[in-house]
Amino acid sequence: MRIYNFENDRSLSTDELYMKEALRLAQRAFEEDEVPIGAIIVSQGKIIGKGYNLTERLNDVTAHAEMQAFTAASNFIGGKYLKDCTLYVTIEPCVMCAGASYWTQISRIVYGAKDEKRGFAKFNEQIIHPKTEIFGGVMEGDCAALIKSFFRNKR
Amino acid sequence: MRIYNFENDRSLSTDELYMKEALRLAQRAFEEDEVPIGAIIVSQGKIIGKGYNLTERLNDVTAHAEMQAFTAASNFIGGKYLKDCTLYVTIEPCVMCAGASYWTQISRIVYGAKDEKRGFAKFNEQIIHPKTEIFGGVMEGDCAALIKSFFRNKR
Repeated sequence: MRIYNFENDRSLSTDELYMKEALRLAQRAFEEDEVPIGAIIVSQGKIIGKGYNLTERLNDVTAHAEMQAFTAASNFIGGKYLKDCTLYVTIEPCVMCAGASYWTQISRIVYGAKDEKRGFAKFNEQIIHPKTEIFGGVMEGDCAALIKSFFRNKR
Repeated sequence: MRIYNFENDRSLSTDELYMKEALRLAQRAFEEDEVPIGAIIVSQGKIIGKGYNLTERLNDVTAHAEMQAFTAASNFIGGKYLKDCTLYVTIEPCVMCAGASYWTQISRIVYGAKDEKRGFAKFNEQIIHPKTEIFGGVMEGDCAALIKSFFRNKR
C-alpha cells in the first residue's frame, strides 16, 4: 500500500489523481489482454485496495477489478464494511460489483466512463446502498478510450 | 467432487436431492455462525462446485455461497462459462450473485426460499442472463426455516 505522490500533478483534482491510479491498473489489464478496467479503494488519503480485471487469466467471472479491490481493502481493514472509503473505478460498476458495493456500505464510488450495456444504473439505481454517494465522469475520456481501443484491437 | 448417492431418497425429485446437498452446506454455515446459505453447481449429474456463506469468517462481503461455487466450478471446468450447469442455492440470489451468474451464462438456477429484501428479482429480473432458466421454491420451507432460526437466535 502506498500514498499517492501529490507532487507530480498539481493541476489535477484529488479525484482525478486517484482515477489516474485506477487507469494505470486498467492499462496493466490491457497489457495482459484483459478487458481494461482498474479500481482502487482509498481511505484517509491512503490506497488500501487495488485490482484490475483478471477474468481471463483466472477463468473466473468474479475477478472484476472492483471485487478484488473490495476483498483487498476488507483484508487491510480487517472488517467487511468499507465506511469512510472511496472506490475509484475506470468504468461504471456492473450489477455484480454494484451489488457487492451495497454489502460493503462504502461511502463513495467515483467512476470514469459509463457502461451503457452492463452498468448497474440501467437496471436499478437502488442497487447502490443509500449511504453510498456515487459520482461519474471523472477522466471519462481516458477511461472510455482505453476500453474502445481494446475492443477495436479485438475486431 | 462427488456424485450424489441417489439410493437414499427415492421419494425426492432430482432438484430436491441437490437442494438437500445445498442445505447441508447452509447448515454448516449456521454452525459457524454465518448467515446460513449454501450453494452447489451441478453439471451432468456431478457436483463441480460448492460454497457456503463465509462473509464473517473472511471479513469479505464477496464470500457468498454462490460466488464461491461459481469460482470452484469455473476452476473445475477450466473456463469461465458455466453452460450446461445448474446452480442450486438455498436462498434467492442477491444482486451481486445474480450479477455474477449473468457473466457465467449458467443454464439454470434453482433456489429454495425467496429473499424479499435483497433478492435480485425485486430490483430487476433482467439481471439474469436470457439463456438462464430460473426456478424457485424447491424445499422452500426447509431453506427459509434455517435462516429464520438463525436470525431468531441473534435477537
